[in-house]
Amino acid sequence: MTQSTEQPEVRAEPRRRPGGRTERTRAQVLDAVGAELAERGYDALTLDAVAARAGVHRATVYRRWRDVGGLLADLFAATADDDWQPEDTGSLEGDLAALNRENLVALTVQPSIAAALLAASFRSEEAARGLRRLWADRYARCEVIVARAIRRGELPPATDARRLLVTATAPLYHEVMLLGTPPDPDLPGQAAKATALAAKAGAFTCPTPANDPS
Amino acid sequence: MTQSTEQPEVRAEPRRRPGGRTERTRAQVLDAVGAELAERGYDALTLDAVAARAGVHRATVYRRWRDVGGLLADLFAATADDDWQPEDTGSLEGDLAALNRENLVALTVQPSIAAALLAASFRSEEAARGLRRLWADRYARCEVIVARAIRRGELPPATDARRLLVTATAPLYHEVMLLGTPPDPDLPGQAAKATALAAKAGAFTCPTPANDPS
Repeated sequence: MTQSTEQPEVRAEPRRRPGGRTERTRAQVLDAVGAELAERGYDALTLDAVAARAGVHRATVYRRWRDVGGLLADLFAATADDDWQPEDTGSLEGDLAALNRENLVALTVQPSIAAALLAASFRSEEAARGLRRLWADRYARCEVIVARAIRRGELPPATDARRLLVTATAPLYHEVMLLGTPPDPDLPGQAAKATALAAKAGAFTCPTPANDPS
Repeated sequence: MTQSTEQPEVRAEPRRRPGGRTERTRAQVLDAVGAELAERGYDALTLDAVAARAGVHRATVYRRWRDVGGLLADLFAATADDDWQPEDTGSLEGDLAALNRENLVALTVQPSIAAALLAASFRSEEAARGLRRLWADRYARCEVIVARAIRRGELPPATDARRLLVTATAPLYHEVMLLGTPPDPDLPGQAAKATALAAKAGAFTCPTPANDPS
């Protein structure tokens, strides 16, 4: 799923002067965390490097985020706290292809914060938990793709949205992040088409009554 | 894909006395590498720990494998050097389900060498290259699943075997290794069914003439 550090919300402490100095400091620090991770990786991530890159006092970073785990947790919190919604293209296959294209860009842009967070999730339990919560949130937001397809009559009401979405998105992560295949610009559309064909043939129909996510 | 350290072949140096002391030493050392990785992870992997666990002289391990990269490279070489073939169940969906069930066991058995090697591939370029070569070999061996389905008339001759196989196997890796979902015993069969339905609907038909892998 895609990341964005725009429009962060303070969660760790009460919000003060929205858009004010506290907010700006947080945005600078989290931008620096993402950039350090993407360019230098988890092993090189230190509070000192983040403070230097952000142009923020070391003492401020140590006081507010304490350690690398605190920085990662806040980066995930800020990333989840956006208004991202999947694109509405008017068809199931189109929506899935658009989602995959967005994921392909996020994973292959140089440097990629998304790829760095995924790699970090194999290094740090804190990063793994954060990424899994973020993914759960993104997949939940994507359920509207299935709900729209059901409303359009493209899919039966009793369609398992999450299974359909994982089927559509997994091949891209598998190829790019695990198999190390060079990014294939046709893959987003191909995976979307295969999933839409399987879905219309009843592959994701729930055995029990619908859990329509709309 | 599944791992096995049975029937290893010596590649780094000429094979001496097959099944003799050199072979036995290699098998002991590579078993110890797998066990150390699976139980303690890449970060704890040292030649001393491997030598102690294998009951082999440190000097032998240092002389023959030199460093952790040498141990990993030889583990991958031995793992690829088996006679593994995908199960022949008589149908495309059955073959894909059997493959996924094997992968699910390999990824979730405690401790799992497969999961440890996957995690190590995010830590070490040597492990990443080794795993990718191993995966390429395993996917190539699995192409017979598609060739059999074509011969049975289940699939059109111009079916892209690799895309089909990645579609069938990716959801399980995605759920277990990236999303951290508790292993679902229904997933192997569900992913196989979705892929078979998509394949029969033409999702993996090549735009160009067939590259029949049989």
